[in-house]
Amino acid sequence: MSEMEKQQESTAKFIDGIDFEKGGGIVPVIVQDSKSKDVLMLAYANKEALSLSFSTGMAHYWSRSRASLWKKGETSGNLQTIKKIDTDCDRDTILYLVDQVGVACHRGTWSCFDSVKKNDE
Amino acid sequence: MSEMEKQQESTAKFIDGIDFEKGGGIVPVIVQDSKSKDVLMLAYANKEALSLSFSTGMAHYWSRSRASLWKKGETSGNLQTIKKIDTDCDRDTILYLVDQVGVACHRGTWSCFDSVKKNDE
Repeated sequence: MSEMEKQQESTAKFIDGIDFEKGGGIVPVIVQDSKSKDVLMLAYANKEALSLSFSTGMAHYWSRSRASLWKKGETSGNLQTIKKIDTDCDRDTILYLVDQVGVACHRGTWSCFDSVKKNDE
Repeated sequence: MSEMEKQQESTAKFIDGIDFEKGGGIVPVIVQDSKSKDVLMLAYANKEALSLSFSTGMAHYWSRSRASLWKKGETSGNLQTIKKIDTDCDRDTILYLVDQVGVACHRGTWSCFDSVKKNDE
């Protein structure tokens, strides 16, 4: 088996192990900046969004309000490059470690959380 | 108004501003270690759990599996002292910054996330 095939098998196994059913087809995704470890946002992913995050290396989510797949930064340019995708003991929560281009929040702030500021913010 | 009254008013305003309805009475809580900034777990809180976290200074949650209020560490001793409570732009997610006693995960690991290790773990 080639290195790429091994990686694809490992990714498929990870995705298959996620408990999407508990949340009606979606799981919460904690998004953390890989360098500063700042928590940037909480979003949700369905199986397709998670698969696309793996295959494209760019963060994808499921927008609950728009009920549609959402590539972060597709319109704003505030893309998130995936550095690592992790899950927890219950396999019902995802953690994306990302490199954030620009800012994470639609308000124009580094993080969606009020008290989390970038060093120069 | 005394300093304590001001603080109580500010806490009441924070809690009243949280959108518990979107999640059927509960909101997800990202739990982050205040020193290392490691993400320790994701849990859920209802209004009572959030209020108790403020008033006691110890992390409280709503257990979805047991359908009951849950003081983290009450039986295990793995308590979480609250350092800060924050929310996000949509007011539908909470962030607890905590000092973790012992470990966060029932598996005996520092974090519930597979790849998040303590320095000496």
